[in-house]
Amino acid sequence: MKIALRIEYKKGVEDPEANTVERNALTLGFDMFRSIKIAKEYVFDVDSKNARSEVEKFARDLLVNPVIQEYSIYERDD
Amino acid sequence: MKIALRIEYKKGVEDPEANTVERNALTLGFDMFRSIKIAKEYVFDVDSKNARSEVEKFARDLLVNPVIQEYSIYERDD
Repeated sequence: MKIALRIEYKKGVEDPEANTVERNALTLGFDMFRSIKIAKEYVFDVDSKNARSEVEKFARDLLVNPVIQEYSIYERDD
Repeated sequence: MKIALRIEYKKGVEDPEANTVERNALTLGFDMFRSIKIAKEYVFDVDSKNARSEVEKFARDLLVNPVIQEYSIYERDD
């Protein structure tokens, strides 16, 4: 079963990488982008009946910084 | 309109970060993960009738390395 963990910065937290990409877009003439946000997804191939909760536990243990990030978990087909 | 650009490593290309996370998962006792893959998504808020093709052009100009990465583009609600 494929379980995706999607991590994004919380609203109001500055993402320096996204800011840089926005600036570069403008420099390259892409002025139609109002904003650019970046998310990271970990896609787990899980062998467990509790796939979702195992991924959530691992996310909290290692991958997510709850001070500045929020996450969501969903099932994927790929 | 929100357009997402999803970038992943091509099949067969090693992702050192994903390898590290897999190793850490094992160390922490998460032996139910068969594999872990990482994708990056840029979500553009676009003000253009050609939103999708503008994002694709920008992706090819700046964000995607076609030698080792593949990408997909889709519309998002958020």
